[in-house]
Amino acid sequence: MKRFTGLVAAPFTPFRQDGRVDAGRIERLAASLTLNKVTGAFVCGTTGEGVSMTVAERMKVAERWQACASSKLRVIVHVGHTSLGDCRALAAHAQKIGAAAVGCMAPFCFKPKKAEDLTAFLAEVAAAAPELPFYYYHIPCVTGVTIPAADFLQAAADKIPNLAGVKFTDENLMDYAACVRFEGGRFDVVFGRDEILLAGLALGAQGAIGSTYNYAAPIYHRAIAAFKRGDLAAAQEAQGKANAMIGVLLRFGGSPAVGKAFMRLVGLDCGTARLPLRPLGEAQAEALRAEAEALGFFDFASKV
Amino acid sequence: MKRFTGLVAAPFTPFRQDGRVDAGRIERLAASLTLNKVTGAFVCGTTGEGVSMTVAERMKVAERWQACASSKLRVIVHVGHTSLGDCRALAAHAQKIGAAAVGCMAPFCFKPKKAEDLTAFLAEVAAAAPELPFYYYHIPCVTGVTIPAADFLQAAADKIPNLAGVKFTDENLMDYAACVRFEGGRFDVVFGRDEILLAGLALGAQGAIGSTYNYAAPIYHRAIAAFKRGDLAAAQEAQGKANAMIGVLLRFGGSPAVGKAFMRLVGLDCGTARLPLRPLGEAQAEALRAEAEALGFFDFASKV
Amino acid sequence: MKRFTGLVAAPFTPFRQDGRVDAGRIERLAASLTLNKVTGAFVCGTTGEGVSMTVAERMKVAERWQACASSKLRVIVHVGHTSLGDCRALAAHAQKIGAAAVGCMAPFCFKPKKAEDLTAFLAEVAAAAPELPFYYYHIPCVTGVTIPAADFLQAAADKIPNLAGVKFTDENLMDYAACVRFEGGRFDVVFGRDEILLAGLALGAQGAIGSTYNYAAPIYHRAIAAFKRGDLAAAQEAQGKANAMIGVLLRFGGSPAVGKAFMRLVGLDCGTARLPLRPLGEAQAEALRAEAEALGFFDFASKV
Amino acid sequence: MKRFTGLVAAPFTPFRQDGRVDAGRIERLAASLTLNKVTGAFVCGTTGEGVSMTVAERMKVAERWQACASSKLRVIVHVGHTSLGDCRALAAHAQKIGAAAVGCMAPFCFKPKKAEDLTAFLAEVAAAAPELPFYYYHIPCVTGVTIPAADFLQAAADKIPNLAGVKFTDENLMDYAACVRFEGGRFDVVFGRDEILLAGLALGAQGAIGSTYNYAAPIYHRAIAAFKRGDLAAAQEAQGKANAMIGVLLRFGGSPAVGKAFMRLVGLDCGTARLPLRPLGEAQAEALRAEAEALGFFDFASKV
Repeated sequence: MKRFTGLVAAPFTPFRQDGRVDAGRIERLAASLTLNKVTGAFVCGTTGEGVSMTVAERMKVAERWQACASSKLRVIVHVGHTSLGDCRALAAHAQKIGAAAVGCMAPFCFKPKKAEDLTAFLAEVAAAAPELPFYYYHIPCVTGVTIPAADFLQAAADKIPNLAGVKFTDENLMDYAACVRFEGGRFDVVFGRDEILLAGLALGAQGAIGSTYNYAAPIYHRAIAAFKRGDLAAAQEAQGKANAMIGVLLRFGGSPAVGKAFMRLVGLDCGTARLPLRPLGEAQAEALRAEAEALGFFDFASKV
Repeated sequence: MKRFTGLVAAPFTPFRQDGRVDAGRIERLAASLTLNKVTGAFVCGTTGEGVSMTVAERMKVAERWQACASSKLRVIVHVGHTSLGDCRALAAHAQKIGAAAVGCMAPFCFKPKKAEDLTAFLAEVAAAAPELPFYYYHIPCVTGVTIPAADFLQAAADKIPNLAGVKFTDENLMDYAACVRFEGGRFDVVFGRDEILLAGLALGAQGAIGSTYNYAAPIYHRAIAAFKRGDLAAAQEAQGKANAMIGVLLRFGGSPAVGKAFMRLVGLDCGTARLPLRPLGEAQAEALRAEAEALGFFDFASKV
Repeated sequence: MKRFTGLVAAPFTPFRQDGRVDAGRIERLAASLTLNKVTGAFVCGTTGEGVSMTVAERMKVAERWQACASSKLRVIVHVGHTSLGDCRALAAHAQKIGAAAVGCMAPFCFKPKKAEDLTAFLAEVAAAAPELPFYYYHIPCVTGVTIPAADFLQAAADKIPNLAGVKFTDENLMDYAACVRFEGGRFDVVFGRDEILLAGLALGAQGAIGSTYNYAAPIYHRAIAAFKRGDLAAAQEAQGKANAMIGVLLRFGGSPAVGKAFMRLVGLDCGTARLPLRPLGEAQAEALRAEAEALGFFDFASKV
Repeated sequence: MKRFTGLVAAPFTPFRQDGRVDAGRIERLAASLTLNKVTGAFVCGTTGEGVSMTVAERMKVAERWQACASSKLRVIVHVGHTSLGDCRALAAHAQKIGAAAVGCMAPFCFKPKKAEDLTAFLAEVAAAAPELPFYYYHIPCVTGVTIPAADFLQAAADKIPNLAGVKFTDENLMDYAACVRFEGGRFDVVFGRDEILLAGLALGAQGAIGSTYNYAAPIYHRAIAAFKRGDLAAAQEAQGKANAMIGVLLRFGGSPAVGKAFMRLVGLDCGTARLPLRPLGEAQAEALRAEAEALGFFDFASKV
């Protein structure tokens, strides 16, 4: 299986003002990703408000994204849910439509406390799409499941035949390094913290999945290139610019609703956000634009 | 609207060994509740593993319970989910089948931080079953939504026309008391912590919803009766016995899977639990029986 | 040993504007406590900013309080610290000056995870004042030590000869009830949550230690009396008034610095608070007075 | 002021079996640090069990370390405490004995919530040693003070004249990067997470303070050298070896008591640990030695 390298975006899901999925906007999002050398799309995840959609809606969104897939833009379908039945239906559907991979977060209502229980759940999900590589989406700040990802790999490595790796979205970088080095690098451990991408690179990351790669890919490309040629100062300079932008994102709340305001700045309108999220009001959106502009956002924003 | 008084059980959902819903067992569960003077059933909640079922399964379970409803056993259908669309479909269905009320927890993936956002979400849910009383299911230890319930009442009282009350499952009893006393007792604030029922009574609880009322209702009836006649020592004695039992429940993990092992002890087999929960193994179940027996469980267990 | 019954205050420590201890003010505080039928003083605890003082200062404050002690006002000296040597020095001093009892919180920098480790530490403290009853001050929200108090009692009951009880300041009332009922009521488990005193009474509390008993004892006496005569509505009414006041306290930050603003309202000036606490500014103090007045504080405030 | 570069150890404090400080052992510890090219000693911090000592003991330990200081081993005295008076006394003493710098953690009982309050406290501490560079010791996992260090710098930069930097011990590396880049690198932001040193280097760390540099400095020197010459694979290999060792440390509890067991392995006996910590028993110590040996610890342990 080909690993995910470079930048992979976790796309936003466009919603109309009446709340319905606005799938017609997906094609333009996909084109922008390819234009900005983003190599994959992790759809229906947290950024994509996957859990705020019904199963039918999630399938529809996945289909549209897969219809835009290419050798330059591979699609990972996130199928995480609290109901195993729904996860399996979504995984089987992802395989049917020819997605590149399946991702799944830990069940987040009844929270597994042991790696064996997490493995038992995810094994059932992975088995519903046996021909696709399976990624565990490790994001404790959302799921509340704090089992170290390396402990999961230990428990799951020989229990989930199509286990391919982890989307690692956590601050515990000792755990990240342990995943990367697990059995000599057996798994594809994609880095999921845009704001410390440089730290991930130092610890061995080859690919990264994040939400800000939707609208600010160029600054991260700059950071990666500088890091690879050994110019740490330039890499830190680029990461610093990205982090100033992320600082704005967080000050406004940090949710996908705020991310959609950034998307609008680059000309990619994704409509509203779904409850319980609330879209930014006009005054807020204007304030965000002003802050973004002040820190030079338009110099490194994604092209459309 | 008639308030919920006395004990209301949050029933377990029976599952076959192959994982399918075993709805045929529900009638016997309902009969036992009535026999033990339990006045209501809060179905498809956390104890009922609601979030581990598909929408279709939840509707099927709700229908079977409603078919067993009577003036002595009113059914509240829990419709909580992360997807508003699914919540609304479940709420509309609950109204259609003639349930007594609808309950809904906070969305638990994107966690509202402000009472206004929580209200906005729940208002949409409540509006899908406008003829039914609506209860907010406050359970921060599961949802991670820590907005005080009294703050929610403040925000929602005039925004949700059919708001009837709260199922309050939290340790913050200052908040509980504030809910009870809100606008002179305007709302029905049902107490959701079996292990400190006496504390709830002291602060004004008239009704209580819990999982252990499925299999140990008599000991709580004894506690309530003693409290009402002013015999605190006897009330504490009864609560103490219940808590010894709850201590066993917690030592074995505390999940609905452990509750189902208690159900088996009283002769009400609810089958297996769904992943990510795991049923107790035989040795564990036997150990649980021994501990339960040693503390006198069979002297105060529910009748069948 | 005579148990602590009724209300026990955790007094504030008066500081001059230059930050020095203003021990001369203690006598007046003690007189007000006695006047308001408060039966004890738990000095140099969290309310008393004990950990913000040097060992020498804590001894001086304890001495002044003990000089005001009587059969109607017994003094418990809190000796908690991160350094065992300092705890022991303070405990020995408390015994030397004739205090009624010693209290000690868990060490709060290196936080014990096992009841045995907590017991080992506290046993050394208790042994430094072998002739005094020893109370474990259980306050996880401050210490971060979350070992259930009942587990501590189990581990310590036969290891600390002078163990007399627990000052229980936590929301886990299942744990509180377990402590009260431990070995048939062997220990004196004083209730430490003013805002849910009624809940404590229902679970068997005979005494209560708190900070708001310094300035609002009458309303709690009213609640206790009503509860004892079986008039729950009146008891809840009184608790409700107290909680409105506590609501103000919390909205202004909840620290001893805010408590001192309440003290000033009843005419008991305790001076400033020590860093890292900051005294309320004049405008804030005025706003607090207005809110307190609006909820009827002066109708139930302590007398001086 | 000369910044701290390379490795700085946070030394253990030797205690006799009877619990007294065993200052005579300090000289040998200092010699080992210099031999292993460790450039500084951060004494009486968490590793040094500073808060478990009395003020007099802390001064004695600081004096002994300062007596071993040289141009190759600069001593930073940690003066953190909950009592400002004690902090100031310790800071003044550090200046008097000629230490290179003062460090202070946030007060950890009353926990400041705003950067201004933290600044107000630390400004008073820093003012007691006005001729020494002052470092804020940011370690939220111990203090519970979660104010981002960059927010502290923003508040304190112009309020604390001798503010020199931060000892940064946290997982929030976005905050770390912000501190490093604050006003173009105005402050010395020393990295405090041994297990992710590579991540720190990528984000601009020039120096690092940690506990495992006491007994395993060579493997970190190897990691740093490899990183500097651009050999990431070798750097990750060295970090991986270090992390295998840290994994053992954590599995045995992670406290300074376990660290002292590692010290014994390299021939540097630091005696017992103080309550509430407990020294490893003989069987545990033997098990630790076996695990350490199995992962190659003796190939990269510090020399004596």
